[in-house]
Amino acid sequence: MAAQHFAARWMRTKEADMSEGLLKGRQLIEPGDFTIEELESVFELADRIIANQDAYVDLCKGKLLASLFYEPSTRTRFSFESAMLRLGGRVFGFDNPNNSSVSKGETLMDTAQIVNGYADIAVIRHPREGTAKLFAQSAPELPVINAGDGGHEHPTQTLTDLLTIRHLLGSCSGKTIGVCGDLLFGRTIHSLVKTLNRYSDNRFIFISPKELRMPDFFLSMLPAGSYAQTDSLDDAIGQVDILYMSRVQRERFVNEEEYLRLKDVYVLDRRKMRRAREDMIVMHPLPRVNEIAREVDADPRAVYFRQAKFGMYVRMALIAKLLGVAA
Amino acid sequence: MAAQHFAARWMRTKEADMSEGLLKGRQLIEPGDFTIEELESVFELADRIIANQDAYVDLCKGKLLASLFYEPSTRTRFSFESAMLRLGGRVFGFDNPNNSSVSKGETLMDTAQIVNGYADIAVIRHPREGTAKLFAQSAPELPVINAGDGGHEHPTQTLTDLLTIRHLLGSCSGKTIGVCGDLLFGRTIHSLVKTLNRYSDNRFIFISPKELRMPDFFLSMLPAGSYAQTDSLDDAIGQVDILYMSRVQRERFVNEEEYLRLKDVYVLDRRKMRRAREDMIVMHPLPRVNEIAREVDADPRAVYFRQAKFGMYVRMALIAKLLGVAA
Amino acid sequence: MAAQHFAARWMRTKEADMSEGLLKGRQLIEPGDFTIEELESVFELADRIIANQDAYVDLCKGKLLASLFYEPSTRTRFSFESAMLRLGGRVFGFDNPNNSSVSKGETLMDTAQIVNGYADIAVIRHPREGTAKLFAQSAPELPVINAGDGGHEHPTQTLTDLLTIRHLLGSCSGKTIGVCGDLLFGRTIHSLVKTLNRYSDNRFIFISPKELRMPDFFLSMLPAGSYAQTDSLDDAIGQVDILYMSRVQRERFVNEEEYLRLKDVYVLDRRKMRRAREDMIVMHPLPRVNEIAREVDADPRAVYFRQAKFGMYVRMALIAKLLGVAA
Repeated sequence: MAAQHFAARWMRTKEADMSEGLLKGRQLIEPGDFTIEELESVFELADRIIANQDAYVDLCKGKLLASLFYEPSTRTRFSFESAMLRLGGRVFGFDNPNNSSVSKGETLMDTAQIVNGYADIAVIRHPREGTAKLFAQSAPELPVINAGDGGHEHPTQTLTDLLTIRHLLGSCSGKTIGVCGDLLFGRTIHSLVKTLNRYSDNRFIFISPKELRMPDFFLSMLPAGSYAQTDSLDDAIGQVDILYMSRVQRERFVNEEEYLRLKDVYVLDRRKMRRAREDMIVMHPLPRVNEIAREVDADPRAVYFRQAKFGMYVRMALIAKLLGVAA
Repeated sequence: MAAQHFAARWMRTKEADMSEGLLKGRQLIEPGDFTIEELESVFELADRIIANQDAYVDLCKGKLLASLFYEPSTRTRFSFESAMLRLGGRVFGFDNPNNSSVSKGETLMDTAQIVNGYADIAVIRHPREGTAKLFAQSAPELPVINAGDGGHEHPTQTLTDLLTIRHLLGSCSGKTIGVCGDLLFGRTIHSLVKTLNRYSDNRFIFISPKELRMPDFFLSMLPAGSYAQTDSLDDAIGQVDILYMSRVQRERFVNEEEYLRLKDVYVLDRRKMRRAREDMIVMHPLPRVNEIAREVDADPRAVYFRQAKFGMYVRMALIAKLLGVAA
Repeated sequence: MAAQHFAARWMRTKEADMSEGLLKGRQLIEPGDFTIEELESVFELADRIIANQDAYVDLCKGKLLASLFYEPSTRTRFSFESAMLRLGGRVFGFDNPNNSSVSKGETLMDTAQIVNGYADIAVIRHPREGTAKLFAQSAPELPVINAGDGGHEHPTQTLTDLLTIRHLLGSCSGKTIGVCGDLLFGRTIHSLVKTLNRYSDNRFIFISPKELRMPDFFLSMLPAGSYAQTDSLDDAIGQVDILYMSRVQRERFVNEEEYLRLKDVYVLDRRKMRRAREDMIVMHPLPRVNEIAREVDADPRAVYFRQAKFGMYVRMALIAKLLGVAA
C-alpha cells in the first residue's frame, strides 16, 4: 500500500464524515465507508440488541445471508453466521475455496451476480487484496460486507473493537490507547487507530520493538502530539485506558531467528498487569498465541473473550442496518 | 450412453406423458420422470412464488432438506439451499466427498436409508452416472432430486431453462431455439432439446463446429423438419427466439490443440448481437468461460443471470410440490 | 485405557447415580455423567417427541447449536444437526479440521470460550481422547455434548441404543443381549454394556473369536453370572432378546492376514436369522461393512435403520433437556 494511496483514502473518509445517509443497501468494504454518525448508529442498535436480545429473534425472518469464505477463518465466519441466525435469518455459503466453482473458471464478477440473485446480503472473505471491492462493485444492489481481503481491510474487526470500547468505557472519545505488538504489518491495528483518530481527543501509545514500529507515513497522518512511541510495555501499561495486544505473525518475518528473538518480548502476564490501572481493559483480536499469558484470563480487566462476543452483536446490528430492517 | 438405451428412455418418457398424478412424494431423476402437465404445474407455482414471494416464507416450516454433494458444485448447491431456506425450511448436508462416511465403507444404499430417517427431502449430486437413481431406489419413500450424476442428467437445469423461457416468452411452445457450442457432449443441451421437443411446434438450429455436432442417434429421434444444422453463429442468430450458449469443456477434447482451435470460434459479442432480433433472449447455464463476451452482459436480451435466479424459483416450486405443501 | 482408570470412572458413575438434579446446563462427556433417572427422563421426552413431533417444531426457536467436527463423521453430524433443526433451532459449525482456526495456533481452550459467546449449546467430535472433556471444562457454563473423542467415549450412541431398546422392547431391564463382533476394541459396545449393567437384571452373551474377546478387566467388573462367552453366533442367536452386531475394524488388526481370516466369521445372514426368536431385534451402530448381509434388511427384526432414526430423536430430547426448554 503506497503512502499516496493511503492518504487519498484518508481524505475520502473525512469527506464521507460530512455526508448523511441511511445504511440500508450500503456496502462495507473499509471502516471509512461509514461516517462516525453511521458507525454510532450501528453501535446504538448493538447496545439495544444486547439489552434485549429476545426482541430481535425474528428481525431478519425470510432473509438470506451468503457466507463466502474463500479462505478459512472459523471465528469470523462463526460470528457472522451466529449473528444472522440469532436474528432469525438463514445462511448458506462455503468455507472451502476448493469446493467453489472457481475451479470451473467462473469469475468472481459472475459469482457476485449469481449470489445477488439468491441472497439478500453477502459476506466475503478472500486472501487477495481488493477482492471484496471487486465483488461489491459487480453486484451494486447487494449489501456486501468485507470480512477480510488479504492484509488489506477487515472492517467488522474494527467495529467489534469500537463497540467493545464504547460499551465498556462509555464512548470511543477521550481515551488513551496503548497498542502493543507488530505495529508495522498489523492490519487490525492500523484500521483501529485510523478510526479512533476520527473520534475526538484520543491519544495513542505505540508499544513495539524498533523493527516493528508504526510506519512513518501512517504516523505523519496523525495529529501532532496525539501519540507517543516506546519499546517498553512495562513503562506504558500504567498510563492507558485500553491496552490493545496483538499477535506477532511468524509469516511476517524475514528469518526465523528474528521471529524467535521478538515474539516473547511483549508478552502480557500477571506481573505486568499489576502496574496497570484498575479500570483499564485488555483487548485482543484473537486468536492469541502466547502474547497474553493464560494466567491473565481470570483478571476482570481481560475482556478479549467478551470482545469476541461483542463481535457477534455488532455484526447483528450491521446486518440489520444494511438490510434496512431496523432503525 | 448407447443409442438403444437412449431410445428406450425416450419411449418411457412419452408413456409417462400420458399418465396423471400428483407430485407429492415423487422423485426427479431425469426430466422424463414428469409429464408436461406436471412440469407446467411446477412452473405455475414458480410464477406464483415470483409474483408474491412473501406469501411463501413459512411454506416449508419444520421440513428438512438433505443436501448431499459428492462433488463440489457451488452454484447448484446454493440454488437448492437458498430455495429451501426461502420457503422457511432447513438444510443440512455436505459438499465435500472426503468428509463423508464413504471413507468408512458405507454404501450409498445404506446412506440413503439413514438420510431417509433424518430428512423430508434430499438432493444428491454425484460424479458417477446412475448414482442418483440408485440412491432414490434405496429410499423409495423419500422425495429425491438428482442434482447431476456425471455426464448423465441434471433435470433441474432443464426445469430452470424451461421456466426462464416460459416466464420471459410466454410459453415453451412454438419457438425457434438456436443451440450453440459443444452439442456432442453437452448434457445440459441434450436434456433441454429433448424436453422442448415434448412441447409443440419447436424448431431447433444447431450451431457448432463439425467436430462437436449433435450425435446422429439424437437427431434421428427428432421429427423431420424440426431442426437445421449450421456452423455459423452469424448466419443463425437473426432467426432465433432463444440463443442458448454453452461452454466448450476442455476436458472433453482429445488434445489441447483441438481445444484451443475451437474454443473461441463461437464467442458471442456485441457485434454478433446486432444481427439478433430485438425480442430474442440469450441464455447460458453458467458458469461461462469466455463464450459470451462481458460486453454483452449489459444488453437487456442477455438473461443468463436472471436465468440463474429462475433456477432458485423453480427449485422452490419443485421442493414444495414434492413435499406436498403446495397445490 | 488402564484398568485402574476404568474402575475409578466406574465408581464415579455409581456415585453419580445417587445424586439428583435437572439436566439444564449440564454437559455430557460419557454416559456415566447421567444417572439412570436422568437417562430415563431423556428417553421419556424422546418418546413424547416421537408420538407428536409437530408439537416440538418451535421448541428451540432462537437457540444456536455449534457443531464442531474436528474429524469427519457424516452420520453423527447429520443426526445432531437434523435434531436441532427439527426443534426449530439453528446450527453453525464445521466438519473439516483443516478449515478451523487451529491452523493459526488457537488452542482448543480459547475456541471453547469464543464458541461459548456465540452458541447456546455445542457438540464436539475430535480424534484425540479427552478433548471433549478439556473443551467442556474450558466453557463450564456451556452445555457441551461429546460426539466421540477418539476410541474413548461416544455417549449419544449409547443413548441411541438404549432408546431403541426401550422403545421397541418396553424397557432396558431384564433383557438378554447378545453382543457380537470386535469386543476387545469396540468403544460402542463397552459403553453400551457398562450402561445396560446399571439397569437391573440384564444378561450378556459375548460372541466373538478368542482374539477379540471382552477384556478381562472389563469382565471383572460385571456381576458374577451376568454373562457368558462363546465363539458361536449360531449357538447364541436363539437365546437373545437383542443381537447387537458390530463392525470388525481393519485398523485394529496387527496384520492383514488376521483381518481377512476373522472379518467374515461373524456375518449375520438369513440362514442364521432362522434360529433367532420371533420377537428379538438386530441392532448395529452403523456403518456396516459386510457383517450383516443385505438380505437381512427386509426382516422386520432388523431394526438398525430405525435405530439410526431413534438417534435423531434421542438427540432432540437431549438438546432440549440441556437447554432447559422441556420438562
